[in-house]
Amino acid sequence: MPGMRRCGVGLVGAGTVGGGVAETLLTRGDLLARRSGVDVDLAMAADQDVARALAAGVPAGRVVDDYRKVVVNPGVDIVVELMGGVGTAHEVVMAALDAGKHVVTANKALLAERGADIFRKAREKKLVVAFEAAVAGGIPLLLALREGLIANRVRSLLGIVNGTSNYILTAMTEKSLPFATALQEAQRLGFAEADPSADIDGKDSGHKLSLLSALAFDTWIDFSQLHIEGIRGIQDADIRIASYLGYVPKLLGVIRAEPGPGAAGDDDGGEAADGARLFLSVHPALLRATHPLAGVSGSLNAVETESDLALESMFYGRGAGRFPTASAVVADIVAVAKSVAFGGPGPAWLPPERNACRVAPFDDYRARHYLRFIVRDVPGVLGTLATALGAKDVSIAAMHQFEAERSDGYASVCLVTHNAREGNVAQALRDISALELLHEPPVLIRIEG
Amino acid sequence: MPGMRRCGVGLVGAGTVGGGVAETLLTRGDLLARRSGVDVDLAMAADQDVARALAAGVPAGRVVDDYRKVVVNPGVDIVVELMGGVGTAHEVVMAALDAGKHVVTANKALLAERGADIFRKAREKKLVVAFEAAVAGGIPLLLALREGLIANRVRSLLGIVNGTSNYILTAMTEKSLPFATALQEAQRLGFAEADPSADIDGKDSGHKLSLLSALAFDTWIDFSQLHIEGIRGIQDADIRIASYLGYVPKLLGVIRAEPGPGAAGDDDGGEAADGARLFLSVHPALLRATHPLAGVSGSLNAVETESDLALESMFYGRGAGRFPTASAVVADIVAVAKSVAFGGPGPAWLPPERNACRVAPFDDYRARHYLRFIVRDVPGVLGTLATALGAKDVSIAAMHQFEAERSDGYASVCLVTHNAREGNVAQALRDISALELLHEPPVLIRIEG
Repeated sequence: MPGMRRCGVGLVGAGTVGGGVAETLLTRGDLLARRSGVDVDLAMAADQDVARALAAGVPAGRVVDDYRKVVVNPGVDIVVELMGGVGTAHEVVMAALDAGKHVVTANKALLAERGADIFRKAREKKLVVAFEAAVAGGIPLLLALREGLIANRVRSLLGIVNGTSNYILTAMTEKSLPFATALQEAQRLGFAEADPSADIDGKDSGHKLSLLSALAFDTWIDFSQLHIEGIRGIQDADIRIASYLGYVPKLLGVIRAEPGPGAAGDDDGGEAADGARLFLSVHPALLRATHPLAGVSGSLNAVETESDLALESMFYGRGAGRFPTASAVVADIVAVAKSVAFGGPGPAWLPPERNACRVAPFDDYRARHYLRFIVRDVPGVLGTLATALGAKDVSIAAMHQFEAERSDGYASVCLVTHNAREGNVAQALRDISALELLHEPPVLIRIEG
Repeated sequence: MPGMRRCGVGLVGAGTVGGGVAETLLTRGDLLARRSGVDVDLAMAADQDVARALAAGVPAGRVVDDYRKVVVNPGVDIVVELMGGVGTAHEVVMAALDAGKHVVTANKALLAERGADIFRKAREKKLVVAFEAAVAGGIPLLLALREGLIANRVRSLLGIVNGTSNYILTAMTEKSLPFATALQEAQRLGFAEADPSADIDGKDSGHKLSLLSALAFDTWIDFSQLHIEGIRGIQDADIRIASYLGYVPKLLGVIRAEPGPGAAGDDDGGEAADGARLFLSVHPALLRATHPLAGVSGSLNAVETESDLALESMFYGRGAGRFPTASAVVADIVAVAKSVAFGGPGPAWLPPERNACRVAPFDDYRARHYLRFIVRDVPGVLGTLATALGAKDVSIAAMHQFEAERSDGYASVCLVTHNAREGNVAQALRDISALELLHEPPVLIRIEG
C-alpha cells in the first residue's frame, strides 16, 4: 500500500490454522491497514507440503519448503510459527529470535514445556513472543488479562480450555452417554483426535494453565509442577447423580492465589499478593448449574477470573478451529506489526523475570468434594464412613443413599463435603479403603465455583 | 521511580470513580510500573470539593479546585475526565486536547452526544481519547473489539449494558415483582438513581450502543438515529408467560449488519461488509433461557458478538461500581502512558473518518415477536387476529390462550411470530387495534438470539 509503513510476515506451517492465517492476511490487507495503519505483508510461507500453502492462496513465488528461508529473509520482521509440536517448532522459534525476528505462535505445548529458554532469549534480544492463540483460540483472553486487567491482582481463575473434553462431558450430560461412547462420537465428528490422550487426560489444559499462570499471576511454573487429572475415569452414574444434585461436570483448569505471609492489605507492588501461595490444577469438577461456566457447552471455551478491582469477569468463545484461531494469530501479528512500524514497546507478553507467587502443594488445596462409595449394605456403614471422614476433619454437608440400585449386597452412597483440605480427604479415603467395606475404589470429584 | 520513564496523569473529578482511580494509581504505582515499564504519576487532581480528592489519598499539594490548573500543568500528559455530565466535561476534554494532552474518560453521554467534535479535534492534534470505562465498566470490552477482533468483520452484537435495568428485570423475573416494586427495591439498594429515567428508558444503553457501533462496525452514528425503547412498560404478566415459554427478558442493545449491495464474498477492505446496512436498537427482548446472555443476572453486564472469523464471543463482568470502573480507567491510562513514554501510535481508539456502514430504517428490522392481546372473548376472534397478521406477512409460530384468567368477557392471547419485518408487524397491530376488539393496546416484545 503506497505511502504506508510495511511489516513483513513469514509463516512457518500452512496447515489448518496456518492456511487460515495466510488466507486472512491475503484477503484482508486493506481492512487491517485501515484499522492498524500498517501494511501487513505476507512475505513468505514455508511448509514441507508446498501444496498446502498454495491452496491457501499464497503466490507461488512466496512459497518455500524450508523454514530456514523464512527466518533469513530480510523482508520478514515477524516469524509466525504454526507447525505445531515441540521439536522442529522449537528450532524455528529459536532461529527466528537469533535472527532478530519477533515471533507469533499458537503452540501451547512448545511454550509450556520449553518456554523458559524461548522467553529468556526473547528478553535478551528485546523481541516479542506473542501467543494469544495458544490459549482459548479465538477468545482475546491474554489481551484482556495482560492489558485489560493490568491494574488488578487476580485472585482466582477457572477455565474450560479444552474443547474436546468439554464436548465429551456435554455429550455425557445431555445424552446420558457413557464416556467411551461420547469419545467415539467426538472422534467421528472431528472434535477429538484418533489419539485423544493429550486432550482427555488434561495435558493440553495443563499447557494452557501454565501460560495463564504467567499472564494472570506473574508466575512462571514448570509444567511438571502442575496437578493434572483428566476425564477418562468419569462415570455416567456420577454425572446423573450430580445433575440430580444441581451440578454440571466440567474439566477445569483452576488457579487460586492464597495470601502469603507478607500480603496484608493493599501494599504496594504485590501481584495476586506478593508471596502468595498459588494452587494450580487441572481436574474434573462439578459446577452449580447457575454458575456462569456451567452453560459453556460443546466445544466452546471460557475463562472466568476473580480479581480485586474488576471483580468477576468471564471471556467466552471458540477455543479452536481454523478461522477462530487465525483471528487470534492475526490480532497478535497486527499488534506486533504496529510496534515494528511505529516503534514503542510492543505488546508486553513476556512472562515475569521473577515469580510473584510460589506454587503451593496440592495437598493443601481446599474444596468441597463429591464422594461416592459402593459400600457393603450392612448396619452402621454410613456411620463408619462419616466417622472416618470426621477423623480427618472432613465434614459432611449432604448425604444421599439411593434405594435398590444394586442387588449384590452393596449400596451406592454419595456424600458432599464442606470445604476440606485435599490431603485430609485423600487420607480419609485411604483409611476407608482399608476397611474392606468397598466394592471398588471411591469416586472423588471436586466442587468448584 | 528512579531511571524509569514517567507519564503524568491529571485527574478531573474525584467522586466515586475518580476517587477509585486516584486510590489505585497512588497505591499500585510499583505494580503498574513493573507490568508496563512506565512510572504512572498522579500529578494533580481537581474537584470543586477538594475534600473528596484528599479522602482518596491525593497529597494536599496536588489537589486543586479548578480543572484549568490540571489542563495547563506541564507535568500532566494525560487528562482523565471523570466528572460526568456533558457541559463542563465537554469544556475539560476540549481544553485538554487544545493543550496537547491525551484524554481518558468514562463519560458515555459526553462521547455519544458530543463525540463528533471531540474526535475531530483529537484526530487533528494526533491525540488519543480512550474510553474503555464508558461501556460495560470493568469488562475490557473495547480492547477486545478493537484489538482482539481486529481481523474480524462483526456481524451482530447483543449487549446487556445497563445494570439498573438488568437488576430490575432480574428482580421481576426471579421474585415475580411488578415493575414499580422492583424499581423501588433497586433504588433502595443503590442499583437505581432517584431519577432512574436515563437507565430504565434506555438512553444510557443507547449512549453505549453508539460507541460500540463506532468500535465494532467502524460506523459513527448520531445518537438521535438510534431506535430506543426502555423497560418502563414491561408487565409482570408478560414475564410470567415468557418464562412459561422458556424465555428470559433483558434490555438489549442490538446491532446487526446486513450485507449491502457491494458486499458479495470476502472482498478486500470491507467492514461488517462495506456498505452494509446497520440496524441499531435498544429494546426489551426475550432470550431463550439457554442463550449465553440469559444467565447474566442482577447488575452484571455482558456483550455477545458474532463475527466472521472468531464466530461467537462473549465478554461478561461488572458494568459499574467504584473499583470495576477504576480498573478500566487505569488500563486506559497505562496504555496511553506506554505510548507517551516509549512512542508508538498509542491505542487506536478513534472512530472511523468515513463510516463503513449506513444506518437502516428500523421498520426494515426483522425479528420474531412475542405479542399479547387482551381481546374480546367472542367466536372467531383468534382467526381475526391471525388473518390481520397474515395480511401483513406476519406468520404465527405459536399461539397460547390461557383459560379463565379474566372474568370481564376478555381473554388474554399470546402469539409468537416467525421472523417478521418490524414495519409490517407495526401496521398489523394498528389494523388490529382499529377493529375495536382489544381491551388495551397490544403488547410487543421482540425475541432475540
